[in-house]
Amino acid sequence: MGLMKAETTLDRLRRGSIPYAVEKAAATEGVSSERLAAQMLDGSAVIPAGRAGRQLRLAAIGAGLRTKVNANLGTSSEMVSAHEEAAKLEMAEKAGADAVMDLSCGGDTIALRRLLLSRTNLPFGTVPVYEAAVEARESFGSIVKMGVGDLMDVVERQAIDGVDFMTIHAALTRSALKKLNAQGRVMDVVSRGGAFMIAWMLHNDRENPFYEHYDSLLEILARHDVTISLGDGLRPGCLADASDRAQIAELVTMGELASRAREAGVQAMIEGPGHVPLQDIESNVILAKKLTGGAPFYVLGPLVTDVAPGYDHITAAIGGALAGAAGADFICYVTPAEHLGLPGLEDVRQGVIAARIAAHAADIAKGSVEAAAWDRQMAEARKSLDWESQINLSMDPDKARSVYEARQSGKVEGCSMCGELCAMKLVSEHLGLEAGDIKSC
Amino acid sequence: MGLMKAETTLDRLRRGSIPYAVEKAAATEGVSSERLAAQMLDGSAVIPAGRAGRQLRLAAIGAGLRTKVNANLGTSSEMVSAHEEAAKLEMAEKAGADAVMDLSCGGDTIALRRLLLSRTNLPFGTVPVYEAAVEARESFGSIVKMGVGDLMDVVERQAIDGVDFMTIHAALTRSALKKLNAQGRVMDVVSRGGAFMIAWMLHNDRENPFYEHYDSLLEILARHDVTISLGDGLRPGCLADASDRAQIAELVTMGELASRAREAGVQAMIEGPGHVPLQDIESNVILAKKLTGGAPFYVLGPLVTDVAPGYDHITAAIGGALAGAAGADFICYVTPAEHLGLPGLEDVRQGVIAARIAAHAADIAKGSVEAAAWDRQMAEARKSLDWESQINLSMDPDKARSVYEARQSGKVEGCSMCGELCAMKLVSEHLGLEAGDIKSC
Repeated sequence: MGLMKAETTLDRLRRGSIPYAVEKAAATEGVSSERLAAQMLDGSAVIPAGRAGRQLRLAAIGAGLRTKVNANLGTSSEMVSAHEEAAKLEMAEKAGADAVMDLSCGGDTIALRRLLLSRTNLPFGTVPVYEAAVEARESFGSIVKMGVGDLMDVVERQAIDGVDFMTIHAALTRSALKKLNAQGRVMDVVSRGGAFMIAWMLHNDRENPFYEHYDSLLEILARHDVTISLGDGLRPGCLADASDRAQIAELVTMGELASRAREAGVQAMIEGPGHVPLQDIESNVILAKKLTGGAPFYVLGPLVTDVAPGYDHITAAIGGALAGAAGADFICYVTPAEHLGLPGLEDVRQGVIAARIAAHAADIAKGSVEAAAWDRQMAEARKSLDWESQINLSMDPDKARSVYEARQSGKVEGCSMCGELCAMKLVSEHLGLEAGDIKSC
Repeated sequence: MGLMKAETTLDRLRRGSIPYAVEKAAATEGVSSERLAAQMLDGSAVIPAGRAGRQLRLAAIGAGLRTKVNANLGTSSEMVSAHEEAAKLEMAEKAGADAVMDLSCGGDTIALRRLLLSRTNLPFGTVPVYEAAVEARESFGSIVKMGVGDLMDVVERQAIDGVDFMTIHAALTRSALKKLNAQGRVMDVVSRGGAFMIAWMLHNDRENPFYEHYDSLLEILARHDVTISLGDGLRPGCLADASDRAQIAELVTMGELASRAREAGVQAMIEGPGHVPLQDIESNVILAKKLTGGAPFYVLGPLVTDVAPGYDHITAAIGGALAGAAGADFICYVTPAEHLGLPGLEDVRQGVIAARIAAHAADIAKGSVEAAAWDRQMAEARKSLDWESQINLSMDPDKARSVYEARQSGKVEGCSMCGELCAMKLVSEHLGLEAGDIKSC
């Protein structure tokens, strides 16, 4: 049977071949393809790219690589518009997302996914249990009535459509759930995928089907070279629940499942919280890396406070920057609409930019020469009061230009902030001309 | 002469008396007035409150106290509108600023300051050299032609008007400037006050007048019980310049001047950067505390990247949260307009809220029981899908309500994000009813 099986990227790397995707991603990152290949083999880097052959703007995710940013898209049962989701996709790309996920739970989710896939060359992720749940609801009236085969069929269908990575909550076992119940929580479970699994497990009095049938799942994923993103269904939904025994028990299992995925030729990454107090973020990241053999760590925020709905792109940027600096490799954006509703177009832009700020600050902290050089270029443009370069070097040039132009009277050198009393002009005049004075003082 | 001198708050504390302001501020903070008094005596806390007797909403700033937030207001030569500045003041208060500073450099700065002072009961700060510079420009055609007496007169005039704390760049000495020149910098000097001092020092070939005449300055400040905020005129204006010899040389002198201020009965705090890479923020704060005898540390951001104009409230919130967690006590807001122009009304709101998020995340990290309890209340409101409480518990309830209401169809329990597939409803149904199942698994 081994002969008939199509090789995955990991399979090829194991026999010493370096696929084109690895070479290309390595070149983008400015690392050697040998180093990136070695990291993929030891599990510390992934390149989510399914077999569908879409022209991918490849994203290598892992230690020593640029911190990447994901934007979530998708409908809910209350908000269904393919047109709007396509517009959000375009906005996410324009704002600089490195990957997108379609989390749709409303309307014709299959048609929407195919539409979005046809419109982007970014790595594309999904959470298959959402679609399985929606279908089970339509077919049987309830999520809890879906069969294990239904679940696996959705995974394969999405893989065939060209999905590059999938969030699978396989580590949310009955044993972890028991720990959650024993310890108690303020908010129990806030992961939607986690909630689906739990509802199913309790109603059917069975183990998590993705856990119980993990080898079958890996076979499907390997067949289509899909990267598994092990979802944290027990992630904390508030600061008070962070780093509890349920979360860490699930994380331990995630580490085991990541190893098994790699053995089966499937690349794996690990999803992390969520809501975490600032002082615990570094230890969370270090622990996740330890327990999962250094697998790429994909964080949702984390949000450093629960009390700022309307501004959770900011609470998440704080946590994301810290997590990134501590070693997280992939940051899922959080938009200003988080905890209040589905994001609109402008929320998508705000979310992507905030996450990119976090990722970039983290890259500087990680010692990236390229990241630091960008900031230095901006500093030089500021020093020379070169506004055109400042705007072009901005993370969001459109935004920078619109704020700048709205405020300028057109007659000042410098800006409206200090007007004629510009510190930099003043110092240039005096420090430049009279530098000799300083040396003699 | 000692008999004729009016006592300052510090003088009274030294002879064992506890002024009403200290008692009141201690009660607000939930600490004993004895502890706060001890901190003020050892220099690790200040209560900026001038003698003018405005009804102050007192802010105690220092170790172990709630991290405070300042909002900057003020005109430039290009944007002058007393009406707009008054509106910004109102917005800053509404958004929850703990203090405001008037940095006006344009129009009738004296009238504007008096107007703003009459409209607020928040601690009020200024940078007197701005007004001195504007006046010198009008009277003599150039900033560099102002006399030492002119400078001191402005300080006293502002103190009489009721200013509570003043930024004074007294530690920017010729010696520090020499170090800046020897080392070189990408952006030289970006502090406007610092630039004024340097221009004056170089043109007149003299030492910094605030440094040379520091005792006279302290006499004026003591006479009006004004708190000195030692300005960092050599603060880095970009990541590349952070933590250089010029910055640290100035900081060493700031420590000396803080001690001299306290000896003269004048409360002192220390201003810090500016632009600092994420990985250097903690060490910057620790060093500042060490070198200044634990004086309250007042940071401007710090911004963790230079490349995000239009979003610098976010780059600053990341740095501010980390600085606060490391011990910074007072965070000056940065608005989305930073580096592009003067802020408008909405920028003020965004800036204050972002800084409050940073301060609150820091307070949780500092172990504040009150801060953590607020988050827990929010988590409980979320758990019970109690939207009214969620909105009322928000840091910016108006914003939370407007985002929420714009997205709700009115027919869902839960929210538009997950619609009928709300994770929390699902888990409540299943985990609540069938908890016995878990225990037996």
